Amino acid sequence: MSDSTINIFEQQLIHYRLEVDAYLNAHLPDANTFPKAAQLHEAIRYATEGGKKIRAVLVLAACEALGANPEHALPTACAVELFHAYSLVHDDLPAMDDDEERRGKPTLHVRFGEANAILVGDALLTLGFEWLAKRQTQYSSPEKVIQVMTTLSQALGSQGMVGGQYLDLQQKFQSADDLRQMQDLKTGALLSAATKVGAILADAEASSIKRLSEFGLLLGQTYQLVDDLLDKDQDENHNASMYDYLDETEIRQQAETLNAAACKCIEPLGDGAMWLKSLANNLLLRNN
Amino acid sequence: MSDSTINIFEQQLIHYRLEVDAYLNAHLPDANTFPKAAQLHEAIRYATEGGKKIRAVLVLAACEALGANPEHALPTACAVELFHAYSLVHDDLPAMDDDEERRGKPTLHVRFGEANAILVGDALLTLGFEWLAKRQTQYSSPEKVIQVMTTLSQALGSQGMVGGQYLDLQQKFQSADDLRQMQDLKTGALLSAATKVGAILADAEASSIKRLSEFGLLLGQTYQLVDDLLDKDQDENHNASMYDYLDETEIRQQAETLNAAACKCIEPLGDGAMWLKSLANNLLLRNN
Repeated sequence: MSDSTINIFEQQLIHYRLEVDAYLNAHLPDANTFPKAAQLHEAIRYATEGGKKIRAVLVLAACEALGANPEHALPTACAVELFHAYSLVHDDLPAMDDDEERRGKPTLHVRFGEANAILVGDALLTLGFEWLAKRQTQYSSPEKVIQVMTTLSQALGSQGMVGGQYLDLQQKFQSADDLRQMQDLKTGALLSAATKVGAILADAEASSIKRLSEFGLLLGQTYQLVDDLLDKDQDENHNASMYDYLDETEIRQQAETLNAAACKCIEPLGDGAMWLKSLANNLLLRNN
Repeated sequence: MSDSTINIFEQQLIHYRLEVDAYLNAHLPDANTFPKAAQLHEAIRYATEGGKKIRAVLVLAACEALGANPEHALPTACAVELFHAYSLVHDDLPAMDDDEERRGKPTLHVRFGEANAILVGDALLTLGFEWLAKRQTQYSSPEKVIQVMTTLSQALGSQGMVGGQYLDLQQKFQSADDLRQMQDLKTGALLSAATKVGAILADAEASSIKRLSEFGLLLGQTYQLVDDLLDKDQDENHNASMYDYLDETEIRQQAETLNAAACKCIEPLGDGAMWLKSLANNLLLRNN
């Protein structure tokens, strides 16, 4: 990859993130929205700060890859980010993964208490759907928004992300396939839904929507393997990881194979898919 | 009220509830849906069993009061019941109200553990939106469904039910008005949204939608006062109640005044509103 390619890629990534952060900042409730619940709204903002905003970026980039204006998918991109933030707040709870730090800061329940963390997660999940219904309809037909809502609610539910978190808490894995199924549900389902809804909002044809959805799933699988490589020796809870079934070389090889499959999957989309391929390669080579 | 009026009222109430229970039973995931998460889906069903199903009944009755077929509002009625079930499961958690019994059975976290209770609440909230997007669109235009989703998500969010639960946990009330504001958010918002979305799905005109929405709010306020009358001496957590500001006679009087206002509000709808008025009177006179 030449220097100028890297620059174009990174400039675009920064641009997407700035748009997402600006939208969140403009539309999230704040301390003045409802003074008696100022702390609740402060905590909601706290939960959405920082992070890579990869899911929102995927919505925007998928939409743009198919030739549509990504700004018209911003409410959905940010709703997806609210869904992700909710999942982190609830997963971090003492009764769940019991984590004390997130994105270099105290987790929400450490900072605001457990009851507020439960409520903030609930409020974020609800607000995501409110933004889809109230804000995405400013840019898209009700039919498209309903399709987006169906896709996202299925990705988030008990046969999607919540089901994945349930399986993760059980920690009853017999094979690498068992582990991958959990990861596909817990992480892959929302990543795949993100690229899929970006394609839906671009008014893409069914075959392109399918390609983007598949791309998101493969990207999620690669992402998870790279996470395992980066987290080696760092998992204090001794949760299952691919290291239970594969060695480092095998994990790296699988990650490269899946990444290549992800890129191949969107190859037929032509030049529009270039940036998404750079993103996939970038996530494969990341070191945090 | 004559004997025959009571019978007609009760027959209709039983009919609505049977329809709701049958729909829930037919459409909720079960142990076979996803065998690895059988316990999660068992717990989701556990959370929706029993109770008065008042919110679902309100959706159906509001729809029928305005001359539409209530069966065409069933997916939304049941989604509203999922939202209510989610709120009970999360409110009962140790970090929240810490309740051990609900509807005569152990609360969900007592029966299935705290992590599962958090996940079940999350899954129910998500599934409610999935049913709106995927199932209500079988009967209503995407435009109407989007209106229903906007109404419900606002009623459920940090400036609705979640905000009410936040204020309830704070227990910083200075007056009867403070307490009522919390109750309007925690309980009234969803009751009011239930009658409102029933009216929206009946394709009612704006003035009728407004009447039904107002009726739901007044019904909620009456309901809460009757709750306080019935719970006297029973509140083990010494939470604030109207008894902190009013005596029994005053509370009863207020309940009757609000109930009369609720009935008057839907008076212009004519015969169609008769059953809803009977329901309001029935809730006023209930002893559990």
